[in-house]
Amino acid sequence: MITYEPVRGMEDYFDQRSKIIRFIEDVFRQTVEKAGYKEAITPIVEDFELFSVKGGEELRKTMYVFKDKANREIALRPEITPSIVRLYLNSLQHYPKPIRIFYVGRVYRYDEPQQGRYREFRQAGVELLGSDSTIADIEILQLLENFYEKLGIKDQISFKINNIGIFRKLFTWISMDDQLQEHVLHLLDKGKTDEAKQLFDEKVSLNQNIRRFMDLLVDRGNNIKLEEVRSEAEKTGLPTLMEEIDKLEFIDKMLSSMRLNHITDFSFVRGLAYYTGPIFEVVKKDLPFSIAGGGRYDTLVEIYGGNKTPAVGFAIGVERTIFALNTEKLVLTNNSPIVAVIALENSVITEALRIISKLRNQDIITILNEKNIPLSKLVPFYAEQGFTHLVIVGKKEVESGKVTIRNLATREQRLVNFNELDKFPL
Amino acid sequence: MITYEPVRGMEDYFDQRSKIIRFIEDVFRQTVEKAGYKEAITPIVEDFELFSVKGGEELRKTMYVFKDKANREIALRPEITPSIVRLYLNSLQHYPKPIRIFYVGRVYRYDEPQQGRYREFRQAGVELLGSDSTIADIEILQLLENFYEKLGIKDQISFKINNIGIFRKLFTWISMDDQLQEHVLHLLDKGKTDEAKQLFDEKVSLNQNIRRFMDLLVDRGNNIKLEEVRSEAEKTGLPTLMEEIDKLEFIDKMLSSMRLNHITDFSFVRGLAYYTGPIFEVVKKDLPFSIAGGGRYDTLVEIYGGNKTPAVGFAIGVERTIFALNTEKLVLTNNSPIVAVIALENSVITEALRIISKLRNQDIITILNEKNIPLSKLVPFYAEQGFTHLVIVGKKEVESGKVTIRNLATREQRLVNFNELDKFPL
Repeated sequence: MITYEPVRGMEDYFDQRSKIIRFIEDVFRQTVEKAGYKEAITPIVEDFELFSVKGGEELRKTMYVFKDKANREIALRPEITPSIVRLYLNSLQHYPKPIRIFYVGRVYRYDEPQQGRYREFRQAGVELLGSDSTIADIEILQLLENFYEKLGIKDQISFKINNIGIFRKLFTWISMDDQLQEHVLHLLDKGKTDEAKQLFDEKVSLNQNIRRFMDLLVDRGNNIKLEEVRSEAEKTGLPTLMEEIDKLEFIDKMLSSMRLNHITDFSFVRGLAYYTGPIFEVVKKDLPFSIAGGGRYDTLVEIYGGNKTPAVGFAIGVERTIFALNTEKLVLTNNSPIVAVIALENSVITEALRIISKLRNQDIITILNEKNIPLSKLVPFYAEQGFTHLVIVGKKEVESGKVTIRNLATREQRLVNFNELDKFPL
Repeated sequence: MITYEPVRGMEDYFDQRSKIIRFIEDVFRQTVEKAGYKEAITPIVEDFELFSVKGGEELRKTMYVFKDKANREIALRPEITPSIVRLYLNSLQHYPKPIRIFYVGRVYRYDEPQQGRYREFRQAGVELLGSDSTIADIEILQLLENFYEKLGIKDQISFKINNIGIFRKLFTWISMDDQLQEHVLHLLDKGKTDEAKQLFDEKVSLNQNIRRFMDLLVDRGNNIKLEEVRSEAEKTGLPTLMEEIDKLEFIDKMLSSMRLNHITDFSFVRGLAYYTGPIFEVVKKDLPFSIAGGGRYDTLVEIYGGNKTPAVGFAIGVERTIFALNTEKLVLTNNSPIVAVIALENSVITEALRIISKLRNQDIITILNEKNIPLSKLVPFYAEQGFTHLVIVGKKEVESGKVTIRNLATREQRLVNFNELDKFPL
């Protein structure tokens, strides 16, 4: 016997719950379209390699990976950014830069299900490809603010920001290769700071200033004045560090001018391996997970074999955003009429169908009764289901161009001419 | 090196091509919501058993089936009706009948790709559960008509109809078991009429009238008068055949009254195994495939272990509907202004961001310039890309509450007050 539950970690949605998903997706789409972003729709199924190139074999553990009948190793996408980069390399390289792309779609992770974590869930996001300017970072941060403003929760959210470029510059300077960098960042993301620092220390050996700077970021990163970071950075003697700190300061200032709650956390690292510059996450006080996140990834296009194409983007979690909303407030109630059209015999169904078209064209939800039971039973049946009116089509009335309308709330019933239905409710 | 093409048989969509998909989905959603249907969103990943129960192991050949890490045999859904029935059994059985459900989503078939046939594609459909009335069949046929009317191609499409209940009654009467029935219907669907008739003949043995009736349906089904079918049906002595012929006649009449092109084809069979009654397909002259199809499936809920719940539904192919549209006509051109806001220095970005919000709130597509190049180069850059206006934000002008607006078409440029931007274009 088949099971009626959806596959573990996946969800069914119906009616109001579907409406909330569509509502969030629609608000997102409208917001980003007004910011000049164009939609990309890419397959859910991709070559596993698209994700493993940067994420590594590690990723396999938390992905749906399988072989198709032609022995291709394919995967259900765990996120959409790699597909957008692939699409860009395949067919959008001739566009003038920067190119603004958005997406809305389902993604898959083989994780242990818990609140706010599903095996199938939805992400909506943007990518701005072909600009290395921090002004592009500002543009997408404003866009994200804009989105949450439209959802009415701008004041309840907070941005966590950092610039992972500070770590990158530091790591590159002490000759950590790319793979080791990912590993250390991964450890920091997982809160394994001691392990991370140990690997760092092995490389940096005797330079006390650099070691102290790293400690400052990792140990006191979320509670430290910018001036202190600057002065410690100066002591390292690495000039390009200051550039990265400047970018972060600029973003910090801009978020202040947008009156957005935010906190700079120099120890903050995001899970995805491709970030190279400013990164951010959106959190809400009472939620144990971030509801959106993004950042700058200046090397991913090159890693995939393309030309140098700096880029920045973010993704929101649709289900997580639902958690952040007061969905009770959101229930989109419908006060407009809902009509059932009843043909008293088959010979007048044609007229019933015409009436239905007329009403639907006025944006009135209208159904055709298919129950073959007496009118005296149909009236309470439709009343209980929230219908507001019945249109009763009888042979005799039709012959004189009339139908009966019954208001199920007032129980008022009257005979009207066909053409009166052009303006319903009468 | 990764490949930039999408996985074989799957498609990327960008900008205008994405818009057409969204347009069709939106028209569909609006149409069916006005007919009282509520949206169901179910996972793309389902237990393989959900499909194999009725479709059989045969289905495996054309499906994406794989084991997940917990050794579940899961599949990417090849269609959505089984998921809707599962959802109904899981959580919607308490709703008053009939229950009207719609869906819009991606489905997967491991077929040889060709025009109009993809490995990932989109279906939108409705299911009406809990009514055995032919009036319910009429309701969804009108709905389908309504949808194609809104797309402007009602006059270019044609309905092919039949009632598979005629075959079912005939087969059951001569004691063909369910599995053999599916097999014979499958052969008919594939055009293997001789094989089908042979299997039928083996069962029917000596009854010449029944054999002649079957020949009539199979050999001349698409070009035969209803009266002839009736008179041959009578000779078989099977009384319930006439009921099924009546249903088909009723539907035929209703399609005529809706002025829908249609043809009754008594030999017509659909690929899906669960149909039990009236079935239909929508075709367009110049297309080698149907663009929509559906029918009655009165036993599927029971097969899944539920109570007797007769049902009827249809699905449209989104990509195939795109083929049917004159998409050139459809390109949704945008004549409204598109604005780039240029901050001449970082100190005025805050003002630039405010202006952007102002314009986007007026539904104007507005972007923030991030290019650090002289204004003299920005002007032609944005003009070439189809932008209509630049808003140039300079420090001196901001101090006196003004910004410069340049119309890229007329090359006119003037200084305006901030608050004049509340009504753009000026």
